[in-house]
Amino acid sequence: MALYVYKFGGTSVGSVERIKAVAQRVKKVHDRGDQIVVVVSAMSGETNKLLALAKAMQNTPNNRELDVLLATGEQVTMALLSMALHDLGCPACSYTGGQVKILTDSSHTKARIRNIDDERLRKDLAAGRVVVVAGFQGVDQEDNITTLGRGGSDTTAVALAAALKADECHIYTDVDGVYTTDPRVEPKARRLDKITFEEMLEMASLGSKVLQIRSVEFAGKYNVALRVLSSFTEGQGTLITYEDNQMEQALISAIAFNRDEAKLTITGVPDLPGVAYKILGPVADANIEIDMIIQNIAGDDTTDFTFTVHRNDYRQAKELLVGVCAQLGAKAVSGDDKIVKISIVGVGMRSHAGIASTMFKTLAQEGINIRMISTSEIKISVVVDEKYLELAVRALHSAFELELEPVES
Amino acid sequence: MALYVYKFGGTSVGSVERIKAVAQRVKKVHDRGDQIVVVVSAMSGETNKLLALAKAMQNTPNNRELDVLLATGEQVTMALLSMALHDLGCPACSYTGGQVKILTDSSHTKARIRNIDDERLRKDLAAGRVVVVAGFQGVDQEDNITTLGRGGSDTTAVALAAALKADECHIYTDVDGVYTTDPRVEPKARRLDKITFEEMLEMASLGSKVLQIRSVEFAGKYNVALRVLSSFTEGQGTLITYEDNQMEQALISAIAFNRDEAKLTITGVPDLPGVAYKILGPVADANIEIDMIIQNIAGDDTTDFTFTVHRNDYRQAKELLVGVCAQLGAKAVSGDDKIVKISIVGVGMRSHAGIASTMFKTLAQEGINIRMISTSEIKISVVVDEKYLELAVRALHSAFELELEPVES
Repeated sequence: MALYVYKFGGTSVGSVERIKAVAQRVKKVHDRGDQIVVVVSAMSGETNKLLALAKAMQNTPNNRELDVLLATGEQVTMALLSMALHDLGCPACSYTGGQVKILTDSSHTKARIRNIDDERLRKDLAAGRVVVVAGFQGVDQEDNITTLGRGGSDTTAVALAAALKADECHIYTDVDGVYTTDPRVEPKARRLDKITFEEMLEMASLGSKVLQIRSVEFAGKYNVALRVLSSFTEGQGTLITYEDNQMEQALISAIAFNRDEAKLTITGVPDLPGVAYKILGPVADANIEIDMIIQNIAGDDTTDFTFTVHRNDYRQAKELLVGVCAQLGAKAVSGDDKIVKISIVGVGMRSHAGIASTMFKTLAQEGINIRMISTSEIKISVVVDEKYLELAVRALHSAFELELEPVES
Repeated sequence: MALYVYKFGGTSVGSVERIKAVAQRVKKVHDRGDQIVVVVSAMSGETNKLLALAKAMQNTPNNRELDVLLATGEQVTMALLSMALHDLGCPACSYTGGQVKILTDSSHTKARIRNIDDERLRKDLAAGRVVVVAGFQGVDQEDNITTLGRGGSDTTAVALAAALKADECHIYTDVDGVYTTDPRVEPKARRLDKITFEEMLEMASLGSKVLQIRSVEFAGKYNVALRVLSSFTEGQGTLITYEDNQMEQALISAIAFNRDEAKLTITGVPDLPGVAYKILGPVADANIEIDMIIQNIAGDDTTDFTFTVHRNDYRQAKELLVGVCAQLGAKAVSGDDKIVKISIVGVGMRSHAGIASTMFKTLAQEGINIRMISTSEIKISVVVDEKYLELAVRALHSAFELELEPVES
């Protein structure tokens, strides 16, 4: 007898019919004698509807009350799914985050889970019931309703799986797994059977929106075997797990990319201690997230400083930088918001030399100019002109033979 | 400094604009230094929308899960109202029934309140905050969400007023108070400034749907001063309170009526012990509510037995009675579903003779035949043909001079 936590997102429970389909899938697990906890999101569209109501009340809605409001979305879904299960003759019981209880800190709209009391769930599971839990929500120490922020339902599922020591945590979405790259860009992209937590983290932070990054961190930290599957089709999906000896030893696992980047450069900056802070401080103070940062010594006593931001923040960041430039007596500010970031990701590159050179050679052969380079232990990222995105992804996909099933080592 | 509990029903919070209007009204109370707890229903239409979703899942939705689902309606309203108050600069905090906490028994969809823990509310009130509470809901001892059934928000308000020893409990509806009779039937009908709990109970049970009967019982039991007012207009409404010496000493206070009655008679029943049970047992077993019951000795060793039911149950009750008639060896079953019940209600009739004769004389003068009579200590009810309803109500309203303001005794 195994114990599973299944999580279904908004589109997977977006209608009466979809919820009934989920109930059928859950019942199968129950019927074969396994235990199952189901975490649900709000029906797609509901959260936005509630947000619109909130904004009609208060331009910037009170955070505590916003959490009270948004938490109703998941509560509706959990009750409906539980009814659908009862209708199939499958015993079920639904719980809000507060009932479980999922204890969080008091940071309304972006709370973090502190503890889960799994006693009640264990009793239900032992009694042969399916347990349905509202994702995305919890309560703080004073019993105020909190929500976990975007993608919070994934985090709820992983946290429950960790607390219950579940055999696997299944995240059902509208894609059937993690791919070597976006199939809309490279039709030869292949679904990965497995990927490591580290690789998945790099993928997620690079804008591959399959899983919420916090839930992957959480799963890695508590060693929860995480599987991404489609709620619309059958299949094994992709298992996210620790690197082990049995693991497929591909040099790199996937190619991620991010279209929403913009690049800013300030040249001729006097090369003095604290200069990086003076440049990036005002940008960070304006709540603009900075991604890649590169600094080059120009040769004389000055330095060139380049960083990337989200394309939406480009104009504001540039204005701030013009002010900084004058203050520092730097030479000039330039920028480009028609760039993209492409990254190759793989734990295999730790133990293999030559990955970077293969990447750079491949891009050079296609005549693609590299504008920035940044590396981590299991990732190499380059910034190139936007127009080269598809060409670069396909060339790299082919160069690293990602379309081929890896050979077991 | 006074403490008020205000309750706003579904139409009073039916839109963004209506909720903002409620916030304005509440803020005025807060601004003048009084303490206020606001109980809200679901926005009008929401509960029916949720019920439809439930029925799409399960023909007869699981009661526990139905409560989980329906409770979201009030939770949405309470968060929105709290935001609207914040938007006006009025500090506010919203609570679900479970958070308050309003402890009920475990009878899902028709739970009864057992206890209210008012400590948290008192803290908020002391800190100068408006407290917004979801009506209609509570939790049982195992923290399962329960609902109180139809009109449950009125009961929540009265129970909170009792627990907090509030000065007054205001029920805001779409009418501006309790009238001497339905103004659509008698345009001279007058709004009552005061009415006693006992009178209000008789009115409510007679189909005057201003207040849910349980909430009136509750208010009477715990001596909560209850006021019915319109949420759409200004005014003092009607205060429901205990009879006291200062109270206006009208002979009768109001004329209530019920259009939905039907009458059934079984004649020639052998007059033996247990015969009433044999007749009414099968009707009660079919969950048909019986209203008036009259038994007359026919003179020989048989008796005639008459009772009234809701018009919707007439056909089914008659069929059952035909079976009973054969079993008992009674003579015949007859019936009439074109009858109405008209009642005069007033605590004053306790101490005044001649009320009944005035009533009967008035109806006789109009040529209205009385089909049944039933009395209680503060009420006289007659059943007449449906076609006489308006004529009878107007004649009685005039005979008892209800259009005139009563003279203080």
